[in-house]
Amino acid sequence: MDLETVKKYLEKGVGADGDDKNASTINGMPSRFFENFIMQGLHVDQIEKGRVLCSMKVPPRLLNAGNFLHGGATASLVDLVGSAVIYSYGASTSGVSVEISITYLDAAYVGEEIEIEAKALRVGKTVAVVTVEFRKKKTGKIIAQGRHTKYLTVQSKM
Amino acid sequence: MDLETVKKYLEKGVGADGDDKNASTINGMPSRFFENFIMQGLHVDQIEKGRVLCSMKVPPRLLNAGNFLHGGATASLVDLVGSAVIYSYGASTSGVSVEISITYLDAAYVGEEIEIEAKALRVGKTVAVVTVEFRKKKTGKIIAQGRHTKYLTVQSKM
Amino acid sequence: MDLETVKKYLEKGVGADGDDKNASTINGMPSRFFENFIMQGLHVDQIEKGRVLCSMKVPPRLLNAGNFLHGGATASLVDLVGSAVIYSYGASTSGVSVEISITYLDAAYVGEEIEIEAKALRVGKTVAVVTVEFRKKKTGKIIAQGRHTKYLTVQSKM
Amino acid sequence: MDLETVKKYLEKGVGADGDDKNASTINGMPSRFFENFIMQGLHVDQIEKGRVLCSMKVPPRLLNAGNFLHGGATASLVDLVGSAVIYSYGASTSGVSVEISITYLDAAYVGEEIEIEAKALRVGKTVAVVTVEFRKKKTGKIIAQGRHTKYLTVQSKM
Repeated sequence: MDLETVKKYLEKGVGADGDDKNASTINGMPSRFFENFIMQGLHVDQIEKGRVLCSMKVPPRLLNAGNFLHGGATASLVDLVGSAVIYSYGASTSGVSVEISITYLDAAYVGEEIEIEAKALRVGKTVAVVTVEFRKKKTGKIIAQGRHTKYLTVQSKM
Repeated sequence: MDLETVKKYLEKGVGADGDDKNASTINGMPSRFFENFIMQGLHVDQIEKGRVLCSMKVPPRLLNAGNFLHGGATASLVDLVGSAVIYSYGASTSGVSVEISITYLDAAYVGEEIEIEAKALRVGKTVAVVTVEFRKKKTGKIIAQGRHTKYLTVQSKM
Repeated sequence: MDLETVKKYLEKGVGADGDDKNASTINGMPSRFFENFIMQGLHVDQIEKGRVLCSMKVPPRLLNAGNFLHGGATASLVDLVGSAVIYSYGASTSGVSVEISITYLDAAYVGEEIEIEAKALRVGKTVAVVTVEFRKKKTGKIIAQGRHTKYLTVQSKM
Repeated sequence: MDLETVKKYLEKGVGADGDDKNASTINGMPSRFFENFIMQGLHVDQIEKGRVLCSMKVPPRLLNAGNFLHGGATASLVDLVGSAVIYSYGASTSGVSVEISITYLDAAYVGEEIEIEAKALRVGKTVAVVTVEFRKKKTGKIIAQGRHTKYLTVQSKM
């Protein structure tokens, strides 16, 4: 791509003078809409202290240009489902993120059933670490694996 | 939280029989809406081969429960702005993600101006690595720093 | 620490005018001594295609200032045992490292028996990803978990 | 490699009945020898609060089978030089490692002069994050880049 095209790719909707219906729709979205946008359609199949198993049918809205589940959506699910595992210990807050890392292994196409399994590696007094694995429901093949480290005592982080 | 509450947190909108207006709205969103949803409002301030500097006012829709920029949104921007740097080399594709990692350092509140600077560490024939740094525009304080590794020859990855 | 002390901490053995016996000993060590230094004492308990289970008694030489297994030694074992899993597929080379990440969860003290389990998440034609988990043998408690991504076709990386 | 050969690769020196001189030499090494082994030869070129610049000539002992700086040695230097930056704030302890991640970009061959620059991204009351970059001294080309997250209040981690 030439630089002008890259700029356009990044500025989707910016400076849209009425011709971009998306721009005003998106700007009008309610506060904290992000979590609903990502998680809509997620089902919890099993839940116990330290482990959550979810399933989801890859929805059209979360696709990337290659028509498979967007890497950013996968990362967001690592954050959200990973935090749920910390909640499963009875905490009223899941703390703040310290680090998230994801390895991408395979593509998940639209309509495909995936399962997302989050497990606590350690939930201590102040630091919690969870892993989140994405698998194809039919074959068990791993799509991605993430790790999420959180700091549990918000007040004193600084 | 008790396990039932955690389940509800994860299943926002699931099984909503008409009472959740969000559910049907979100399910009706167009294919590949994700990128517009995340990037709406992003401005490109500087762009050259190997480096992109963007700015953004933290929008209400991307907040988390603590009312600052969602870690999943940050991760998604690492993916998207990081890919743009690879495009800046003239490539027509930015490849597939191999790994994304993010360290979270500070909170960015609604309406706050942030800048996002992506730089290529290396763009080779088959592997590219970029860093993406999020800073408060006023103070230069680092909010988050991410790293994104991509594999550039999609066909032969398997 | 004041800056001069930090400098000394980093320059162990540098400028040692005969009084540091370590300096000349270390400088005289043979080429590629690193792997022997790290792995001496490692036992393979189980090995199959895609999975290796090792055990090791934490040796005095690999301790840190806190008298538990050094984080750098753990990282080195993620590299080495992770590579072995790729070899277990019959490859004559395990490629070059693209990324290594490790989360540290607990301390392993001198003389403690630990087990190290490495599993392949994916070994494709050009990219391989493995996880390596360190556990206390007695309790099964996780000490650390690492992930190692390698690029398998050395020649074309550049 | 067949599985027996992989086993041998991992068990260097194990069960060596007198024929392996390395085994007894290595087992006889003093406690906490690891840091000296890795850092011997490291020079501090610049040091200030929040930033350390070191240089090193890649020594034969730290090579891998491909005759360039071992990825495990690089990871260990991320740990050690990264910790020094935290010390540069005046702390008497640099805390315990929470996470280390490294991206590998290029090879550093024996005798090559490299520079290692560590910078603090954030040193708070309880969490510190530093980056460590490895470059070829002649060309400035990046060899590797690491990130090190530490937890500063050891006592309460558990």
